[in-house]
Order: sequence, then C-alpha cells, then structure tokens
Amino acid sequence: MRQSQLFTKTRKEAPADEVSKNAQLLIRAGFIHKEMAGVYTLLPMGLRVIKNIEEIIRKEMNAIGGQEMFLTVLQDKEIWEKTNRWSSDKVDIWFKTNLKSGGELGLGPTHEEPIARMMTNHISSYKNLPIYAYQFQTKFRNEVRAKSGIIRGREFSMKDLYSFDLDQTGLDAFYEKVALAYKRVFNTVGIGHQTYRTFASGGPFSKYSHEFQTVCEAGEDRIYLDEKSGIAVNKEVLNDEVLKDLKLAKKDLIEKKTIEVGNIFKLGTKFSEPLGLFYTDESGVSKPVIMGSYGIGPGRVMGTIVELLSDDKGLVWPKTTAPFQVHLVRLGENQAVVSFADNLYSDLEKRGVEVLYDDRDLRPGEKFADSDLIGIPVRFVVSDKTVAENKIEVKHRTLSESELMSIKDALKIL
Amino acid sequence: MRQSQLFTKTRKEAPADEVSKNAQLLIRAGFIHKEMAGVYTLLPMGLRVIKNIEEIIRKEMNAIGGQEMFLTVLQDKEIWEKTNRWSSDKVDIWFKTNLKSGGELGLGPTHEEPIARMMTNHISSYKNLPIYAYQFQTKFRNEVRAKSGIIRGREFSMKDLYSFDLDQTGLDAFYEKVALAYKRVFNTVGIGHQTYRTFASGGPFSKYSHEFQTVCEAGEDRIYLDEKSGIAVNKEVLNDEVLKDLKLAKKDLIEKKTIEVGNIFKLGTKFSEPLGLFYTDESGVSKPVIMGSYGIGPGRVMGTIVELLSDDKGLVWPKTTAPFQVHLVRLGENQAVVSFADNLYSDLEKRGVEVLYDDRDLRPGEKFADSDLIGIPVRFVVSDKTVAENKIEVKHRTLSESELMSIKDALKIL
Repeated sequence: MRQSQLFTKTRKEAPADEVSKNAQLLIRAGFIHKEMAGVYTLLPMGLRVIKNIEEIIRKEMNAIGGQEMFLTVLQDKEIWEKTNRWSSDKVDIWFKTNLKSGGELGLGPTHEEPIARMMTNHISSYKNLPIYAYQFQTKFRNEVRAKSGIIRGREFSMKDLYSFDLDQTGLDAFYEKVALAYKRVFNTVGIGHQTYRTFASGGPFSKYSHEFQTVCEAGEDRIYLDEKSGIAVNKEVLNDEVLKDLKLAKKDLIEKKTIEVGNIFKLGTKFSEPLGLFYTDESGVSKPVIMGSYGIGPGRVMGTIVELLSDDKGLVWPKTTAPFQVHLVRLGENQAVVSFADNLYSDLEKRGVEVLYDDRDLRPGEKFADSDLIGIPVRFVVSDKTVAENKIEVKHRTLSESELMSIKDALKIL
Repeated sequence: MRQSQLFTKTRKEAPADEVSKNAQLLIRAGFIHKEMAGVYTLLPMGLRVIKNIEEIIRKEMNAIGGQEMFLTVLQDKEIWEKTNRWSSDKVDIWFKTNLKSGGELGLGPTHEEPIARMMTNHISSYKNLPIYAYQFQTKFRNEVRAKSGIIRGREFSMKDLYSFDLDQTGLDAFYEKVALAYKRVFNTVGIGHQTYRTFASGGPFSKYSHEFQTVCEAGEDRIYLDEKSGIAVNKEVLNDEVLKDLKLAKKDLIEKKTIEVGNIFKLGTKFSEPLGLFYTDESGVSKPVIMGSYGIGPGRVMGTIVELLSDDKGLVWPKTTAPFQVHLVRLGENQAVVSFADNLYSDLEKRGVEVLYDDRDLRPGEKFADSDLIGIPVRFVVSDKTVAENKIEVKHRTLSESELMSIKDALKIL
C-alpha cells in the first residue's frame, strides 16, 4: 500500500504513562493505540502482524486435527459455579456485568466451562472421540496492574485449544503433539531460539504442566534453566523433588527472566465431571471425558517479538510476521524517480509481494527514520542515483550495509 | 473435511426455548450453539460461513479505500461522557463493568467515540484527509428481549466503517460509494434481490440516513415500499413531508416486514467536535472533521440468509457463503465405493475445492437428511450404482432432480 494513504503517523514520543518498551515502540510506529492501561487498539499494521501470527498458529492447529470455532465473551454464571470458579475468591481477575433482564454475567477469562458444556451436545459415545477444538477469541482479565504493554493486557487475544480424549493415553499422546506444534510456531514467528518448554505446576491430574517461556529482560516470570540439557523449570515449582525427578543439579541452573508465551495443561476430568461431559465406552460403561487445554496469546507473542528483536532504531520484524515484506522508499520527486518507483510498486503488487511504498514528499532522513522504526525486513530505495544505474538500493533491516542491485536480483532475496 | 471427523452432530430438535427459525435450523445443523438468549457460539461450519461473509465485505471495503483495524471491547467512560452517550438514559443497551483498580468501563455497543479520539493522533492537517477505517469486532447490547436468534444478539459481530472527510462534499461522495459497495455485498451473499436501500431518520447533519432492509417474514422492522420505483421508507419516518420529498404517493406503498442488514449514516461533526477531532485547512483555519458511519452485521446477514432461503428440509446456502462447496456423500462400505469416493475426495481437495465428505457408515436416508439440513449447494453421491457406471450422481440443493455425470462434467459445474 502507498504510505501516503496509510492513515497512521509515526511519532517521536510514546505517551508519558506508557512504561513498557513493546507498547512504546508499537505506539510510536503506529501499530497500536492505547485506549487505557492494558487495553490497546490494533491499527492497520498491528492487525496485519497479529493476522500473520494467527495464521501461523492456525496452520499448526489444523495440522494436528484442530477444528476452529468461536466461543462467546459473555459467560453464564451457572456453569462456572459448577466448577467452583465463579466466586472472585477463586478467580480473582473476573470482569462481571449485569443483564437488564436480570442476572449476572462474566466476561470470559478462559473457556473450559462453556466448551465442556457445549460438547455434551456432541459427545455421547467413544465413537465421537477424540475431538480437538480451538478458537481465537478476546479474553478479559481484570488485572490490578497492567504495566507490560501488550504482554499483559486486560483485554487480549488468545488461541485456546481444548482436547477431548477417551483416556490418559490419548491425552498424553496429543499433549506431546501440541508441544511439538507449539515449538514449530515459536520457531516460525522468530522467537524459538530463546523459548524453552518449562516444567510448571500441574494439578490433581498430572504432576506437571508445561509453559513455553521466552528468555527476555522484560519478562515478568522467572525460570531456572540448565543450559546444557535445555531443561527449564518455573521458579515457582523448583524444589528437591523436582530436581530429582528431572535429574538436575541445582548448581547447573541459571535464573532467567522470561515471558510465558504459551502453556499446555492436562485437565483430566476436572471440568468434564462437574459439567456432565461423559461418554459411553465399548462395553456400555459411562466415563468422564479426559480433557486438556493449550494456549498461545498472539498479542503476547507480538509483544515478545518486539521486546526480543527490536533495536535502538525501532521495530525489527521477522519475515513471517512482518506487516509488509518490502518497504519501498522513494527519494525525490523527479519524474524519472517517480515513474521508476511507481512501476516497481505495481510490479511487486502484481507478484503478490506485500509492499509498503513510501511515496511521501519528505526528506530522506525522515523517511529512513520512519522505515527503521516500522521495521519491515527489507528496504528497497529508489533515488536519482539508483535510477541512473537502472538499479535499486537494497538494505536488510538488521544489516548496516546496503547494496546496489538490479530489480531481478533484488526479487530473488524475497 | 471428512464428516466422520467433524465434531458437530446434527439433531432432530432445536432447544425448546429457541423460537426463531434461523437459530433453530442453525442449531439443528450444528452451525451454532446457544450459550444463553441472544448469545451464540459459532461452531466450525458456522464460523466458515461468517468468515465467507466477512471476506466478501472486506473486499468491498478495501476496494473503496477502507483500512482494516481492530478497536477494543472495553470502553473508557470519559469519551462517552463527552458525547453525552454514557448515561443509560441516553443509551439504554449498555453492558457496564468495573475495574478492580477503580473506575467503571463499558462494553462497546458501537465505536464512534474511541475511533474519533484515536484519530486525533493521526489527523491534524487537511493533507491527512480523507481517511476511511473499518473493523470487524464483537459488539454488546443489553437487549431486554432477544428472541430473534442471531438476528438480534446481545453479543454479535459487526463490520463498522468510519469516514473522516474535509467537508460535506467529500462525505456525500463517499456515502454514495459505500451505498454501492453495500449493494454489491448483499447481491454477492445472496439476499440482494430482497434488499432495499431505505430512507430512515437522519439527525442534525442530514435529513435522512439509509438502512438496507431485507424483506422477510421474520423481520422486526417495517418499511413502506413503492414496488414500481424500488423506493423504500422506514415506517418510523413516513409522513407527508417525506412523501413529498421522495415524490411518492401513499396509495402506491406496500408495508413489508423487513430485517435491517445494514445502515449508513452521515454524522457530520457530532463526534468530532466534542472529542476534539479538528484539522487545519489550507488557509490555516481549524475545522472539525466531517464523519460518517456505516455498519453491516455479518451474523445478522447469516441469519437473514437462513430466514430467506432455507426450506422445510433445512438450510440452503448460496455458493458464496456456503461452509463447503460440495457435499460428497458416500453410500455403502464396499471397497470399490470407498476407494472411488476416497479418490474423488482427495482429487477435489487437491483442486482447492472445499468439500465435506460424508464417509460415515449410516443409512442413505440419514445421510440425505443431514445433507439437506446442512444445505451445501451441490451434492455428489457415490454408490454401487454410480461406481458401476464410473459416474457420480449430482444434485443441487435447490433442485429436486439429480443427474448422473462423469467426474469431469461434475467438476465443470463448480
């Protein structure tokens, strides 16, 4: 798209009350707008990044048999009372509201209860299992503090997958499949090299759950990492028994600040029993369905990419999540330059390359500063000088040197 | 996808408390699940339909210069007080909630206020205008009665577009562009033949707004239609002055029940002035931005398609919005039939045809009843009989006769 048409403007300063690096940069570059603490609008380029992240996750979820659906924000008190999670003593981040026609509702902070109840309509026999269903839905958490930008929002996007299995064996096998799919997601979005599957607290149905923790200075979490084996443990659960279980020596562990970018959890019958989600097995016996839940927050992943990869000039997007693949920057308004750049722009669009075309009449310094701030992976510069040689100047966002290339060669690097 | 894998099951009866035809059929066919009155989960096939409708709308919005973004659900009281729309005396469908850290929030029933405030960061000069921005976002309305299924929900999807212009001329021209784009949307989704641009109440900045009203027995709205000219007027605004304005004779008007599937509204400076959205014109004078707003509810469009097109056997989807393009129904479990159908299924998938493959071991009557209920536009039946002739039986959902065809010929009709 033409940058002269893009309605968002970059800005030199973030709002004074914004303390997180991720939100500061994303606001300055025009990717998000702060409505209030922990509540951010996605502007066009921010939405493009989120859609890219969602699509990467969606493909992996579909590949392991996930079926996409879309649960509701408004929550029926009745089902949350059955699992003892309605009271604010039990779940302390509820937003609640009232129906005019009478009755209290909640805004979904997670969706185990409604999906378990809904599945009672679709699961009755062992023949119906296993089922894996997921969604991308906005979640609401009434956080007292929301200082980490889009990493801990009061309103945020979540991909949540739920598994419904016959037995523990089925759950265990699918759980490992999800863990591998999550690893692929984090590799693809560009944070895999710093992301560790981490042992975390389990529950009545499994000794441990697992989190995916990305090592990052801005992290609110703490893990202990054994760098040799790559085994990581959430600080909250580390004790002598865990060390023994995992064959770790305390002296080999290094404490790291981390962001939790995903988690996987074996729920067992915790939700199926109180909500009446049972199936009849081959011998006619009624049994509770065995559940698991698996979350990744696309907004939090976006924030983590920013925290991890950006530099002092601005955002740095991996190719897979970038709002555009190429930033075409035109310097000057001479007819020859304009027509060269216009032609290159339409050629790139025809080839299906997502390109942001800076066709604005601004000084080169301003254009380059904006380009660095926005962080598109590759920059093509068209100027009097490049046009004279029938070439373009190509610069990767993460390299300091640029290179003069023919258009043909430049296209090869995309 | 294989129907044996699809987790939703069809059912003979809708929930007893569900009185609307659209929700009854969509629940029975496994497209939606009722969480509570006016609040419905989208199951996999329902989500596919909504995504198709959204994509049709998105293309039209992009074609007229719309830039997609994503505003928030949680609303800051402060901006709604500035426009005098916070109080429940003024807007009687608010859901409100409280921040734990103090303060009251609303759940967005519409988004004029936050987008006007946000635009103050991006609009300062006449050079920044016009801007057209839109989103697909869940809206919340605390309706006392919610008896029309997905046509009047308490939680529902909305495409809302907002225009920001220099002056009335710009607004007027864009308004007509949107009207044409809306016409194309309703034609494409399959309800255009019954949908009328209807004169409705305006406001301080324009005498009329316009609604797009679909003639339908289930409609809660009433319009007067002049069938000869195609001019329609919302019953609420019809009076002698309007008749004169539109050169209509009362005797030519027929009252029709309708569903409002879209609306377009000239807002003028109603929101820009109180929220401080001004620009500086070429001569340095500060002026309020001229706004318009334009809505289509994808869920309501889906409900309207159901009300308008379904028959006594079930749903009937137009090709453009159908969850799948082809319903491949296999009758029997003989090796020859299974391998013929399996091959056809993978061939269709390879060609990028969206196909639901009924590979379940059920009686033909049950399969056909399910197929009619689900309402995919074209059915391919593979049975001993068709395999013997190396053909398939092709049936359109809306025709009673089927036809034996070679696969090659059958592919041509897709």
